[in-house]
Amino acid sequence: MKAIWLENNALRYRDDVPVPEPSPGEALVAVRLAGICGTDLELVKGYYPYTGIPGHEFVGEIVQSTVHPERVGDRVVGEINVVCGTCEPCLRRQSTHCERRSVLGIMNRHGAFAEYLCLPLTNLMTVPEDISDENAIFVEPLAAALQIQEQIRISPTDRVLILGSGRLGQLIAQTLVLCGCDLRVVARYHKQRELLSACHIPCIDENDVPERFFDIVVEATGSSGGFALARNAVRPGGTIVLKSTYRDDQQVNLSSIVVDEIAVVGSRCGPFAPALRLIKNRLVNPALLIEARYSLDNGVEAFERAAQTGSLKVLLQIME
Amino acid sequence: MKAIWLENNALRYRDDVPVPEPSPGEALVAVRLAGICGTDLELVKGYYPYTGIPGHEFVGEIVQSTVHPERVGDRVVGEINVVCGTCEPCLRRQSTHCERRSVLGIMNRHGAFAEYLCLPLTNLMTVPEDISDENAIFVEPLAAALQIQEQIRISPTDRVLILGSGRLGQLIAQTLVLCGCDLRVVARYHKQRELLSACHIPCIDENDVPERFFDIVVEATGSSGGFALARNAVRPGGTIVLKSTYRDDQQVNLSSIVVDEIAVVGSRCGPFAPALRLIKNRLVNPALLIEARYSLDNGVEAFERAAQTGSLKVLLQIME
Repeated sequence: MKAIWLENNALRYRDDVPVPEPSPGEALVAVRLAGICGTDLELVKGYYPYTGIPGHEFVGEIVQSTVHPERVGDRVVGEINVVCGTCEPCLRRQSTHCERRSVLGIMNRHGAFAEYLCLPLTNLMTVPEDISDENAIFVEPLAAALQIQEQIRISPTDRVLILGSGRLGQLIAQTLVLCGCDLRVVARYHKQRELLSACHIPCIDENDVPERFFDIVVEATGSSGGFALARNAVRPGGTIVLKSTYRDDQQVNLSSIVVDEIAVVGSRCGPFAPALRLIKNRLVNPALLIEARYSLDNGVEAFERAAQTGSLKVLLQIME
Repeated sequence: MKAIWLENNALRYRDDVPVPEPSPGEALVAVRLAGICGTDLELVKGYYPYTGIPGHEFVGEIVQSTVHPERVGDRVVGEINVVCGTCEPCLRRQSTHCERRSVLGIMNRHGAFAEYLCLPLTNLMTVPEDISDENAIFVEPLAAALQIQEQIRISPTDRVLILGSGRLGQLIAQTLVLCGCDLRVVARYHKQRELLSACHIPCIDENDVPERFFDIVVEATGSSGGFALARNAVRPGGTIVLKSTYRDDQQVNLSSIVVDEIAVVGSRCGPFAPALRLIKNRLVNPALLIEARYSLDNGVEAFERAAQTGSLKVLLQIME
């Protein structure tokens, strides 16, 4: 089959990759549409060693399912963590932390930038008919945005700052504005500001961010400079939510975190069902973020586009 | 008056310091007993620039109070943060983060290693008669231990690890064991282990700490090496509470905190009233930690003793 292949921090298009064989309990999924995410770009930079097909945001169609053949033809999105179900985090219902997990297109499992992928049937959620592929493709990153509210309480009176208004920052903004909180977003680029403005979300210039002011600061810049900005903006006793993953370590003054009693909360994958509900109810409008669409054989070019400064969502149209 | 004086990272005994003049609303307190804390030792090392009389753990007696003369003679302990009452943190009932605060013996206010100190009357809490000076001296650090439970929930089924069993670690252990949680404490020294054992608190060797196992890890080692130990010991989705303040920055892999969804919570000063209740009800036994007692003119020697590896509480007996 056709696929984008990552090896030694280099991407290439291949048309000779064998179609994957579903293990027992898994379905074979024909990928319709896939999205490029910041983590994919970081993988190419070597944030985490990975060889194989990247990609974890997708909408597809079940084409083979031995256990539940009645699901063949279902249009689906998929939870990217493939878990054992028996380790301690799984039993604690924190299966995204499964000790034996593989992660679609990120860790020990070929991903979605290909004609076909395999995932356990239990990972695949049917997309309601009235949700387009162009909205459904955002279920995974929207779930990641919602994970913030799984971890911390955001009160309607909270002052909330989002640093970064790229792919993930925009989705976080669209979910947090629903809390009624006093929300501001640092957006560097005109296009990002226009999108936020279309959703009635106020922007703030990086240089105008008041110091020690915000109850909650979400760091979604995707770069190592974001933490220092977040640290300056959060009030004593406030919370910094970390969403960025990047390769480098960071120099942190932990004593000042003690003195100011800051909480720093790492946040990764989130729940799919509420993401689907918000899309279905038209409370979010993620498709606004789509910037460009490429065919699979132009996938390397699509990555280059997605890596451009200020770029939003770049899609790979795999099934026409 | 007699006092210990800190200047340019050096301590000396002085007998020529003027008795402080209480501002309006403040009382003059004759210090009976004072305790040396890890923060005092860090101040000497230059953790924070401070010139003046250090010391913030004390039991004293009100000797002058213009506004409420009826309180003269009261035996008191004192909240160390002197606050404005009108800034945003004060109005939010987070007055320990007052933007205009001074802090007894730490920031812009002479401390307790002296014959007299001044604090606002509202900072001074009367010590019940059945609490000895030797227990009351621990109200401030015990309040700091209790602050952990002001910030995070500790469930009876949580696995909790305390790193460090010096002065603060011991008090944290005495408070957390009351939660019924599955508590273990890393204790390096025989004396520390004996004290924990006397309170029926299980110890664990640093080399036997299971990785990615504990729901909550409290870092109270007082040194920069503690964070890496805490990071290894906490389970994905777990919480690290930071109690140590020291001079150096720390190299932290923030991306791994995102992937493992760790919460890192800085924790400083806490509530005095519950600390007094626990002592009064004999649910904690802090006086066990007393290791040595010096007169004020031997205060520099007392600091040397407190700085010895594995040293517990060293007191200054100021009023006989």
